[in-house]
Amino acid sequence: MNCKFKSIGIIGKYADPHIDEAIRTLSDHLKSRGVKVLLDEGTASNLPTLDIPTASREEIGTRCDLTIVVGGDGTFLDAARSLSDHGVPLVGVNLGRLGFLVDVSPTEIQGRLDEILNGEYTVEERFLLHAQVIRDGETIMEGDALNDVVLHKWEVARMIEFATYINGSFVHTHRSDGLIISTPTGSTAYALSGGGPILHPMLDAVVLVPICPHTLSHRPLVVHANNQIEIEISHAGKNDGQITCDGQIHHRLEMGDRIRIHTKSRRLQLLHPKGYDYYQILRAKLHWAEHP
Amino acid sequence: MNCKFKSIGIIGKYADPHIDEAIRTLSDHLKSRGVKVLLDEGTASNLPTLDIPTASREEIGTRCDLTIVVGGDGTFLDAARSLSDHGVPLVGVNLGRLGFLVDVSPTEIQGRLDEILNGEYTVEERFLLHAQVIRDGETIMEGDALNDVVLHKWEVARMIEFATYINGSFVHTHRSDGLIISTPTGSTAYALSGGGPILHPMLDAVVLVPICPHTLSHRPLVVHANNQIEIEISHAGKNDGQITCDGQIHHRLEMGDRIRIHTKSRRLQLLHPKGYDYYQILRAKLHWAEHP
Amino acid sequence: MNCKFKSIGIIGKYADPHIDEAIRTLSDHLKSRGVKVLLDEGTASNLPTLDIPTASREEIGTRCDLTIVVGGDGTFLDAARSLSDHGVPLVGVNLGRLGFLVDVSPTEIQGRLDEILNGEYTVEERFLLHAQVIRDGETIMEGDALNDVVLHKWEVARMIEFATYINGSFVHTHRSDGLIISTPTGSTAYALSGGGPILHPMLDAVVLVPICPHTLSHRPLVVHANNQIEIEISHAGKNDGQITCDGQIHHRLEMGDRIRIHTKSRRLQLLHPKGYDYYQILRAKLHWAEHP
Amino acid sequence: MNCKFKSIGIIGKYADPHIDEAIRTLSDHLKSRGVKVLLDEGTASNLPTLDIPTASREEIGTRCDLTIVVGGDGTFLDAARSLSDHGVPLVGVNLGRLGFLVDVSPTEIQGRLDEILNGEYTVEERFLLHAQVIRDGETIMEGDALNDVVLHKWEVARMIEFATYINGSFVHTHRSDGLIISTPTGSTAYALSGGGPILHPMLDAVVLVPICPHTLSHRPLVVHANNQIEIEISHAGKNDGQITCDGQIHHRLEMGDRIRIHTKSRRLQLLHPKGYDYYQILRAKLHWAEHP
Repeated sequence: MNCKFKSIGIIGKYADPHIDEAIRTLSDHLKSRGVKVLLDEGTASNLPTLDIPTASREEIGTRCDLTIVVGGDGTFLDAARSLSDHGVPLVGVNLGRLGFLVDVSPTEIQGRLDEILNGEYTVEERFLLHAQVIRDGETIMEGDALNDVVLHKWEVARMIEFATYINGSFVHTHRSDGLIISTPTGSTAYALSGGGPILHPMLDAVVLVPICPHTLSHRPLVVHANNQIEIEISHAGKNDGQITCDGQIHHRLEMGDRIRIHTKSRRLQLLHPKGYDYYQILRAKLHWAEHP
Repeated sequence: MNCKFKSIGIIGKYADPHIDEAIRTLSDHLKSRGVKVLLDEGTASNLPTLDIPTASREEIGTRCDLTIVVGGDGTFLDAARSLSDHGVPLVGVNLGRLGFLVDVSPTEIQGRLDEILNGEYTVEERFLLHAQVIRDGETIMEGDALNDVVLHKWEVARMIEFATYINGSFVHTHRSDGLIISTPTGSTAYALSGGGPILHPMLDAVVLVPICPHTLSHRPLVVHANNQIEIEISHAGKNDGQITCDGQIHHRLEMGDRIRIHTKSRRLQLLHPKGYDYYQILRAKLHWAEHP
Repeated sequence: MNCKFKSIGIIGKYADPHIDEAIRTLSDHLKSRGVKVLLDEGTASNLPTLDIPTASREEIGTRCDLTIVVGGDGTFLDAARSLSDHGVPLVGVNLGRLGFLVDVSPTEIQGRLDEILNGEYTVEERFLLHAQVIRDGETIMEGDALNDVVLHKWEVARMIEFATYINGSFVHTHRSDGLIISTPTGSTAYALSGGGPILHPMLDAVVLVPICPHTLSHRPLVVHANNQIEIEISHAGKNDGQITCDGQIHHRLEMGDRIRIHTKSRRLQLLHPKGYDYYQILRAKLHWAEHP
Repeated sequence: MNCKFKSIGIIGKYADPHIDEAIRTLSDHLKSRGVKVLLDEGTASNLPTLDIPTASREEIGTRCDLTIVVGGDGTFLDAARSLSDHGVPLVGVNLGRLGFLVDVSPTEIQGRLDEILNGEYTVEERFLLHAQVIRDGETIMEGDALNDVVLHKWEVARMIEFATYINGSFVHTHRSDGLIISTPTGSTAYALSGGGPILHPMLDAVVLVPICPHTLSHRPLVVHANNQIEIEISHAGKNDGQITCDGQIHHRLEMGDRIRIHTKSRRLQLLHPKGYDYYQILRAKLHWAEHP
């Protein structure tokens, strides 16, 4: 059967030397199907015994028509952010532990992958958030997030204070440990630990989850994904606050800083094998009973 | 200025004899603007001193191009359900205590109302849920809800058990006191007490909030409003469960009963005075701090 | 080795015909150790093939110096309530699924039991609650609970209203689905589903957990077990409320009814095998990770 | 009437120049009653116009038989920690906003104070926690807390991992933002924001409240105050964790560090005016309805 993809990028778990066998097997299989393979430079640098052509994320984004991510949800988040402006679809392969984003198991990779290469797959679109920090009228930091943008106190035991605006309307002032602005993708990650609801991935919505709010009636708030969210740090000591995107990109915040968050217009294409069932993954990850 | 509405229905709080003055003033004002007024029969039956032509809900729905509801959110819910198939827009006037749906205060009614009559208003669409109970292949009960459809244990201390399906996919089995299926409108009512998130009214979403679930990871789940939700009572003694719509329409459930819930296609038109601000009402009702 | 107990009662799971083998084996073993065995009448009535002398709960309480409960936590709760005025210690044997109260597994019963018969065990004291309902100055219902006394709405969708007093001091009025008054023993049962904390069994404390309270700042409240708790039904339709003890004893409530709850002075002696570890059971039941 | 106290210390809100009038009035009144007054050195250093003899906390603890704290709950916490080894009782006077610990209002101070000086008061005992951090067998930090000892992630977005032991028994491993170990006094402060229950001040108990735990069944756990709690940092980057006492004393933590927490044997004497009602303060602070 003809392979639907001509050139496939591979991105592996960061700094994990134990994935070389998995990546070699994967690469060999792709080559046997006549596919050109490009290995992410960063991944390759930790796996010196592999003899696969390497490429930057930029090149993978430009030259590949599919990218396979091998690792956990964290690896996938990183890959998704770096490729989000290119439109290349992604498939996630886990290393033994099922993830929400890496749902192909290593034991079934060959069969599942062949199906996908043959064009038998489900496409799911996920959106990313874009966050900007504005200080004295200038953008001093920008970042993308597939899971969440988090404002949190940093190096301080006291709560921080900030005001939230949605589409220009004042919503509330908060005294809390912070605020999680999460996509549906992120709603089963940190936002869930903070008391947020589960948002189905197909939902065009963003949830704002306060972290340990002083006011007990400050509850998670779900708004449409096309809303513009703005947060103003209204009271904090110098460097008492921090913004992070997907837990990986950071910037210190000062009093008066404004954080603007909106949805990126280009969406991520996430390919799933046939028979993909979001609720099945949810049940497995949250230890819900399996049988109806 | 020309009045935008020719015929206006009035529905008042159920069985409250103290609203006659408010309704007389309102009716007189509308007549002075050249509007034809029809008073809800049920409302009129408790207010014998009023001399206003009466009409059934059906007639109000057919003959009026606006309906004014005078009372609390409960009165509004009742009016909305009875008129939902007619497409007549509604305005809510409270009796002194601000409600989410009845946001015009009696002290400002004349000014606010004149603005609305002159065509200066904001239209907000709210959707209703339609629930059916199916037993042995037959529909034994149907009902609409603007706030929520609730499945709860009834006359029993034990938890009930049921399985949930969304768009035909099995989601989970529950052992709990029940399940709240809430619209954004209902998300600030019973669903909030049950631990659910606040859904902005513009969101096309429904939230499923488990009531005291035995499994602690059963958390509120938000799905798109176009999803078909189905619940099957998998274990319960005879008559141990009950379904209610907006807390007002009831039916007993038996083991094997299936509840099907979907969004009604015709949406309710809710008119707000100029300057309507959802977040302001939210702050007032949840005692959030007012100042940014 | 000498057996520490001369006469042992056995109480089995209610109306379960499959426990006859377990009870025969247990009884035979006890007899071989020279112990006199008395089988609970109710248990015996469902197990006609067993040839063991039977006795009422009253007789078991009076004549036995140990009672073995075979079943789940529900069976144990029932046994504990019926024997609580007699002071006979209890051991719980489960039927394959570990319980908080029935912690001896059937596969290890012989070894564990012999240890206990030889005097090698841990004694844990658990207290029970006593609830009275007072109407027009008269006590119309009384009951004991090892887990919890629950006030809940009953056959009604609306919330009920009640006022709570502790040691005569007014605490709060509630509009909610009800209130759980739980012992430490009950804190891992229904109270946990309602959002309550886990109370260690050694703690002399009672927790009041509101069920879906209208006011979001009504949070679980933990007070000393020697406090007198009183609840007054301040608003409810006729028969809209119900009190239950351990989910098994019920009584309808009316407006004006007062519920008085205090700790019983005689405590239950719960025997555990050597090596009993409460936290291990907690980890097993709540699916916490096992390894430090 | 004779004054029950001969020598009274005054401690004021830190670095607040606006309290000089309140302290002068208070001091003058005490002197008029024949009491010797000592003003806390730190307080005096910010109030140069006051002419009151000053003393260190150590001296106040040794020489005074009562200390009056003027400020908010934070001021009181600081005063309580510094005097906890001396046994001098404390009274809290607020500056206009009622606190849990500073319950005498400035408008009624003279009358309330005279009652207390005359011996008409209620004594409430509150206990403090003592925390030690042990690294490589040596105690590298010690601190007291009247509210809470908090372990939290610090300068890091990732969760930290630690294992908890109570009286030497392993309880659980945690992956979370941290853990709050709170006294009843602290249960209405940060622990409440984190989802903990309210513990009545008379309760000899400590609550462990996980902050945003990864495992959803990790719920607040209440144990007897005489329990020894030990936490071992099992996984964290260098300096990723921090311990704080009452949000004011800090120390960085490393992997392998052990935190030991126990109750201090000497309890704090907190004097309240006649008619003190804990539940009234609770209602006022949590915005519960006032009327039964």
